[in-house]
Amino acid sequence: MKLYSYFRSSSSWRVRIALNYKRLEYAYAPIHLLKDGGEQHRDEFRTLNPQGMVPVLEIAEGGKVHRLAQSLAILEFLEEAHPAPPLLPVDRFLRARARQLAEIVNSSIQPLHNLLVLRKVTEELGGERNPWAQDFIRRGLHAFEALARDSAGPYAVCEHPTFADVCLVPQLFQARRFGTDLTPFPTCLAIEAACSKLEPFAAAGPDRQPDAEH
Amino acid sequence: MKLYSYFRSSSSWRVRIALNYKRLEYAYAPIHLLKDGGEQHRDEFRTLNPQGMVPVLEIAEGGKVHRLAQSLAILEFLEEAHPAPPLLPVDRFLRARARQLAEIVNSSIQPLHNLLVLRKVTEELGGERNPWAQDFIRRGLHAFEALARDSAGPYAVCEHPTFADVCLVPQLFQARRFGTDLTPFPTCLAIEAACSKLEPFAAAGPDRQPDAEH
Repeated sequence: MKLYSYFRSSSSWRVRIALNYKRLEYAYAPIHLLKDGGEQHRDEFRTLNPQGMVPVLEIAEGGKVHRLAQSLAILEFLEEAHPAPPLLPVDRFLRARARQLAEIVNSSIQPLHNLLVLRKVTEELGGERNPWAQDFIRRGLHAFEALARDSAGPYAVCEHPTFADVCLVPQLFQARRFGTDLTPFPTCLAIEAACSKLEPFAAAGPDRQPDAEH
Repeated sequence: MKLYSYFRSSSSWRVRIALNYKRLEYAYAPIHLLKDGGEQHRDEFRTLNPQGMVPVLEIAEGGKVHRLAQSLAILEFLEEAHPAPPLLPVDRFLRARARQLAEIVNSSIQPLHNLLVLRKVTEELGGERNPWAQDFIRRGLHAFEALARDSAGPYAVCEHPTFADVCLVPQLFQARRFGTDLTPFPTCLAIEAACSKLEPFAAAGPDRQPDAEH
């Protein structure tokens, strides 16, 4: 397997956590999202993913090369293809809760502060980056916090990490980059602390990627 | 089961399609997203979903009331709890493709033109609603079109509808509301035409909901 990734991309980071957690080996193909206007927009990358976004997971199987994109779709694929160790609970209502929390990050927070949106907000509309990003981050994290508060813990949904934790950890890193005050979110911070002790999470962090910039 | 829904909400519409397709009975609880500043923001609704968004699917089971939110999480729940008729293919790479296409709509298009975002773009930043929405719709649909073009058809991924079609149909309706030119997307339009012949899709349309406004 080969993962097209950018060290600071939170969507790539989610997939790196899942690959590590399931002890799957993969080659790392760096795609620089800023250099020369963004390598993800080049024609050769768009043949891999017409959306021009990382992550892309490339898998050779049955004489064919398959290319998967959209991080949540990749997480579901990995869970089906490599169910152990699991990143979803067994109980179907808890599975729904794990996916709901993951989607709060995946569809209600991260897309609102990706590179393209921030460029439009600041360059086209003259808005400010951090207040825009913080607003969506705070709204999403308030919901995440309220829902995760009842968890059996120490993770967001159950006694092991799930898609919810996989999405939360990179989102909190981004939240800090945008200067978000995280003190209203003690449950989220406790989940992050629990995850940070796990090597699959730690090894997936931006600073430990081949394309890390310090 | 009870579905908290708004007739014109495309995320609610996705869940209505899936419930109909799987022949599941449900009660319809209308939540008006515009009246009095939006019923979804009321305290009593936020106890159902702290995100203050529709859809919410309420399920009484085992002496407990479960509340599911985030439309893709609900689709996955319905697929696991009621696998027939299926809304995902059998082949795991095609399943990943169906989810990738669904996520293009769910995370890269719809969140960028929901009520809250449009309000911020127009009222806070003085931007224009339709050009903003159209830009994200076009980018997303270009990727959807490129990926669905190779499908066995007549649906987006295989010979029956999947999450991809469930997400595409309401998105095309929204695209028209924002004045988007859809002629560059013939595959998407052909998928929509095929789906519109199916009663579960037709019955899920905004005009056929109890809270429809004409």
